Amino acid sequence: MKKIINDVESLLEDSLKGFASVHRDIVSFNPQPHFISRKMPAKTGKVALVSGGGSGHEPLHTGLVGQGMLDAACPGQVFTSPTPDQMLAAAAAVDNGAGVLFIVKNYAGDVMNFEIAAEMLESEHATVLVCDDVSLPADHSTGRRGVAGTLIVEKIVGAAAEAGASLAACQALGERVNKVTASIGVALTSCTVPALGKPTFDIAGDEMEMGVGIHGERGRETVSLESASKIVNELATVIETELAVQAGQKILLHINGFGGTPLMELYAVYDLAEQYWQQRGVDVVRSLVGNYTTSLDMAGCSITVTIMDDELTQLWDAPVHTANLRW
Amino acid sequence: MKKIINDVESLLEDSLKGFASVHRDIVSFNPQPHFISRKMPAKTGKVALVSGGGSGHEPLHTGLVGQGMLDAACPGQVFTSPTPDQMLAAAAAVDNGAGVLFIVKNYAGDVMNFEIAAEMLESEHATVLVCDDVSLPADHSTGRRGVAGTLIVEKIVGAAAEAGASLAACQALGERVNKVTASIGVALTSCTVPALGKPTFDIAGDEMEMGVGIHGERGRETVSLESASKIVNELATVIETELAVQAGQKILLHINGFGGTPLMELYAVYDLAEQYWQQRGVDVVRSLVGNYTTSLDMAGCSITVTIMDDELTQLWDAPVHTANLRW
Repeated sequence: MKKIINDVESLLEDSLKGFASVHRDIVSFNPQPHFISRKMPAKTGKVALVSGGGSGHEPLHTGLVGQGMLDAACPGQVFTSPTPDQMLAAAAAVDNGAGVLFIVKNYAGDVMNFEIAAEMLESEHATVLVCDDVSLPADHSTGRRGVAGTLIVEKIVGAAAEAGASLAACQALGERVNKVTASIGVALTSCTVPALGKPTFDIAGDEMEMGVGIHGERGRETVSLESASKIVNELATVIETELAVQAGQKILLHINGFGGTPLMELYAVYDLAEQYWQQRGVDVVRSLVGNYTTSLDMAGCSITVTIMDDELTQLWDAPVHTANLRW
Repeated sequence: MKKIINDVESLLEDSLKGFASVHRDIVSFNPQPHFISRKMPAKTGKVALVSGGGSGHEPLHTGLVGQGMLDAACPGQVFTSPTPDQMLAAAAAVDNGAGVLFIVKNYAGDVMNFEIAAEMLESEHATVLVCDDVSLPADHSTGRRGVAGTLIVEKIVGAAAEAGASLAACQALGERVNKVTASIGVALTSCTVPALGKPTFDIAGDEMEMGVGIHGERGRETVSLESASKIVNELATVIETELAVQAGQKILLHINGFGGTPLMELYAVYDLAEQYWQQRGVDVVRSLVGNYTTSLDMAGCSITVTIMDDELTQLWDAPVHTANLRW
């Protein structure tokens, strides 16, 4: 395993310490139990947004804590759910009197632990479950996974919370964004989880994994490596069908790198994806390209589309000041 | 070769088109010859900063064009110098009546082509050569290479230019920052240049390359993979000696990822590097962690240190609004 680490056990804590030191103007790190919280105080009466999940997807979620986005993030060990005590401590730290909204990616462990925390939480609370990964069928036994669309839910709901929306309104908005958001990815290599020390799956030098998950879960099928145009067409077609995207609609187009693919390729993928939608009369009104919901060192990327309206566009454009997303 | 591309020939242009579309509020793309220029007009009398170099190091330099940093960037093919016609066209486009400053990384091709452009440029101009890579001896035949410290030169001189500094003052400042900046890196894997289609160098599964260059140039030595603590100690010791860093001094500490190393590891490396300097009574007053001067998909990172004073700190803190660096 080729990683710059001291030992697998301390990697997460070492990383969070470094993160919190670099971004000490934006976040605080609570070491016991682990959570990252917003340093800049929120207005009284602002709904507190708390997310979290396994580590290894950085900058999601810790890098998205700050003004206009998350109030706290609970990082689990790599690809492992955080525990209810983290969520309870984070919620207590950032609850501002207007309730706590949990934003949870749809994975069994995360769902279970956030549910336990929700049951134990005495203050007002609600949950938004993100399940934007359309590589799995809608009736899959465990439901669809939450992937790169989570950032979009967090940004838009974060802006609404900052503007004073109620807990119920934030929850409804999050569910609405989730419904109009779809993602699907492709991996060229596996990632290597530090605690395992070897690639999660084997893939030949001339193959790729279509519909891969962000933990290196096998996707829809292993196929021969294709040109960028063919890959983009295949991924975008799935999204077009799933969201029933129509000519004349406005979309946000997000190309997310899984970590090991150079920015140069991601922007070239964006160019192809933008052409795909333009050719169908769909208007790409907003965009985001980069490594945001990563899978450690996995090579590959995903395409996420959110169907936008004026309200969502305005919330997307609202100021955000976090470690890894700001405008 | 596992890359999401259509063909090697069009990759750069496809990528620049995508980049310019995503960031159309900040930059314009001139396709013939290739350069990226700042869209937001600069004040009259502002020195124009033009940089450039081979592609494959993104976001350097194109992602650093915008208010408070570069006025234009000239991207060559992957790891290949841009040509003088690019530099001349870029300079003509952004010259604002106060002269043009070329910021050039010290590589033979870049130096030669920027020199040719400088000779042909009729307007007032000057050049800053960046050579912060202390992995090579100071008396190396081609001099030291320009690596991740280039971003620091560009940020600080960019702020000074924005504040109205003269061409001579910008040049002197750039040279001063270069002198108090040192970088050294380590690679765990090679990068793969698209046009070659295979890794630039071979390295065993239990080895790493100390002092690697950002094009996958072999470094000081190939050694056994070590713990993060040992790696950080070794790199920081070289920097400490080269810059003669003293207790009581203030530094900017930049951990730069080469592309293939997860953010989680980079922040853990930062934590160790910060401890290294704190133990020596050196004050880490500013920091930057992330993939800024990359080498395509290479795994590894570099440490850069700049000795700061009040003036440099103020210039570092000045607002910057580019695609990939903003505050």
